[in-house]
Amino acid sequence: VQESELSNESVEMGPYAHFMQKEIFEQPGVVANTLEMVLNAQSISPRLFGSEAENIFNNTDSILILACGTSYHAGLVARYWLETVAGLPCNVEIASEYRYRNPAVGANTLVVGISQSGETADTLAALGYARSLGHRYSLGICNVAESALVRQTDLRFLTRAGPEIGVASTKAFTTQLAALMLLTMTLAKLRGRLTGEKEREMIIALRHLPVALQLALQVEPQVKVWAGRFAKKSHALFLGRGMHYPIAMEGALKLKEISYIHAEAYAAGELKHGPLALVDKDMPVVAIAPNDTLLEKLKSNLQEVRARGGELYVFADADSRIQESEGLHVIRLAEHAGSLSPILHTIPLQLLAYHVALQKGTDVDKPRNLAKSVTVE
Amino acid sequence: VQESELSNESVEMGPYAHFMQKEIFEQPGVVANTLEMVLNAQSISPRLFGSEAENIFNNTDSILILACGTSYHAGLVARYWLETVAGLPCNVEIASEYRYRNPAVGANTLVVGISQSGETADTLAALGYARSLGHRYSLGICNVAESALVRQTDLRFLTRAGPEIGVASTKAFTTQLAALMLLTMTLAKLRGRLTGEKEREMIIALRHLPVALQLALQVEPQVKVWAGRFAKKSHALFLGRGMHYPIAMEGALKLKEISYIHAEAYAAGELKHGPLALVDKDMPVVAIAPNDTLLEKLKSNLQEVRARGGELYVFADADSRIQESEGLHVIRLAEHAGSLSPILHTIPLQLLAYHVALQKGTDVDKPRNLAKSVTVE
Repeated sequence: VQESELSNESVEMGPYAHFMQKEIFEQPGVVANTLEMVLNAQSISPRLFGSEAENIFNNTDSILILACGTSYHAGLVARYWLETVAGLPCNVEIASEYRYRNPAVGANTLVVGISQSGETADTLAALGYARSLGHRYSLGICNVAESALVRQTDLRFLTRAGPEIGVASTKAFTTQLAALMLLTMTLAKLRGRLTGEKEREMIIALRHLPVALQLALQVEPQVKVWAGRFAKKSHALFLGRGMHYPIAMEGALKLKEISYIHAEAYAAGELKHGPLALVDKDMPVVAIAPNDTLLEKLKSNLQEVRARGGELYVFADADSRIQESEGLHVIRLAEHAGSLSPILHTIPLQLLAYHVALQKGTDVDKPRNLAKSVTVE
Repeated sequence: VQESELSNESVEMGPYAHFMQKEIFEQPGVVANTLEMVLNAQSISPRLFGSEAENIFNNTDSILILACGTSYHAGLVARYWLETVAGLPCNVEIASEYRYRNPAVGANTLVVGISQSGETADTLAALGYARSLGHRYSLGICNVAESALVRQTDLRFLTRAGPEIGVASTKAFTTQLAALMLLTMTLAKLRGRLTGEKEREMIIALRHLPVALQLALQVEPQVKVWAGRFAKKSHALFLGRGMHYPIAMEGALKLKEISYIHAEAYAAGELKHGPLALVDKDMPVVAIAPNDTLLEKLKSNLQEVRARGGELYVFADADSRIQESEGLHVIRLAEHAGSLSPILHTIPLQLLAYHVALQKGTDVDKPRNLAKSVTVE
């Protein structure tokens, strides 16, 4: 057993009622900490990931991400970034499932393990399996410097979320996403896919991210109103598309974990291939939709269930033209964040889960049946 | 509009109460029809997929499967087969999501589209997108000879399920799986990964499959008993691992579609990363588990929720040593089918959804909100 280095100060709740609430509101600060090395720089450097990173990254021709739970969702967002920005093929696997497959092994695939604690048993075992198959290089993205994950990987990036006490992960997730965006930019740059101009633009966007997160937190009063309605439900569907589909998954998982509402995420296009049958007045549909194309298709899908009382709750942003109407509720983030949009859209979903749990009176920081770090298989 | 060639005979219900029931019980016959060309042969031939198949398959170095809904689940099973038996890297993408990515394009990737009707708009559009990215070769797996999918692909395999009337797909799924196993064996053989002995063994297993399906249908009386309990629930979790994880997804989808029970599937290892919080006496947990390793892990995960009244319903087979106990119910298939096991384990899940819907009195063949073929995006 290692002694914790947590100070009393860092685990105190201050003005907050729960650690989870505190950790949600810490996100502008801890994301800024995680990005510190680029916030003060004009350019991005592979040294962020260790002294050997440049050499390994120069040989990387594809990415395999292994993770569980919330960290798996972070990996799924990163897949879109890595493919789109860095032009690298990327696969993301549930760590506990990866071991049941006979996957192809590329000599130049970088294996990325993501875990807040760095002690997630399935993720560590999956990394070991990948190594045994012949994968040469690994990178750990982790919040704990002295963890097994950090010791077992060739390269590493430490998120600077600080201690996360709430069992439902919040700030660990958004700092993982920040780390994965840095990884994406670094790989894109080394592969000649990031012009100087584009690099400066993206650094400016990253510098603005803490402010944007602060603005996103300001939707809390609106989210509280929705929470009152969700607290009476026992189901919800969460829909997203593209890089916001994993955010829908993460939003549904938060609601499951702490409010015990059976929330399930679907890629929006799959709705009409089955789950639409579930939609009635007892099954609210949440859409993470900073994109009008998705909304237009979704609205037509949902027209037919309006008659059954199905209600649509949309998290939109400055780029969505959607307006409130009968059975269609909208909370709008103040800005549109381009490729960083998944990070911002996480905030209102965390707030929704938190306020629903508060209204239901569940044990927010220690939900039933769950442990903070899953150190058994 | 094309005129249908369905005969009156083939759409009659005979002794069955619903088309879905009839289609479930037709599976031994239609799977045999789909496999006909190998059931009477000593070896497997690429000509099953068209005259150009041998040439194209010889150049294939990876597989990309595009599909929606139930067909997507068939693709996910095939991924395990293709990787394990044929040694081919395989990705499976939700058709409506594929278009939001910037995926890597391999010149020698075979793109496989799966659709019962061959008219699924998202699948057709995804195939078009793949072509526009530079993918050269495509294969359609389809149940309708005159469909758009068949016209648009270089190679094709027609499942011989006959007309499927029930909106919830049953026999189309198992015949798709049969087709995908033939594809796997064909590719494995061309790649020198299937010895003569192994080929004969697998053909013998395929010949036995209709009999095995008939045996699987005999669990119906036991499934009916379980259905009585599920009909009172509004939630369920379905767990699987490896090639049975997509079968858990398919089982959950059936229950959603026709009984309106909110059933959600999870890879068994992910349970403790969140959804375990949902488990109490109102949330039965179904495990598709012809594998004792999974069951042992699952039993330890569930011990802690036994106190909350969580009940575990296990679909096991001749290879599982699991025994019934307090809160642990078992239905056992008569045989163990090795790599064909996902096909067999589909049957009791279809029967469960059917009998739950019967008891709830829902419209089995025409569930609310859903269309048989999703010909819009």
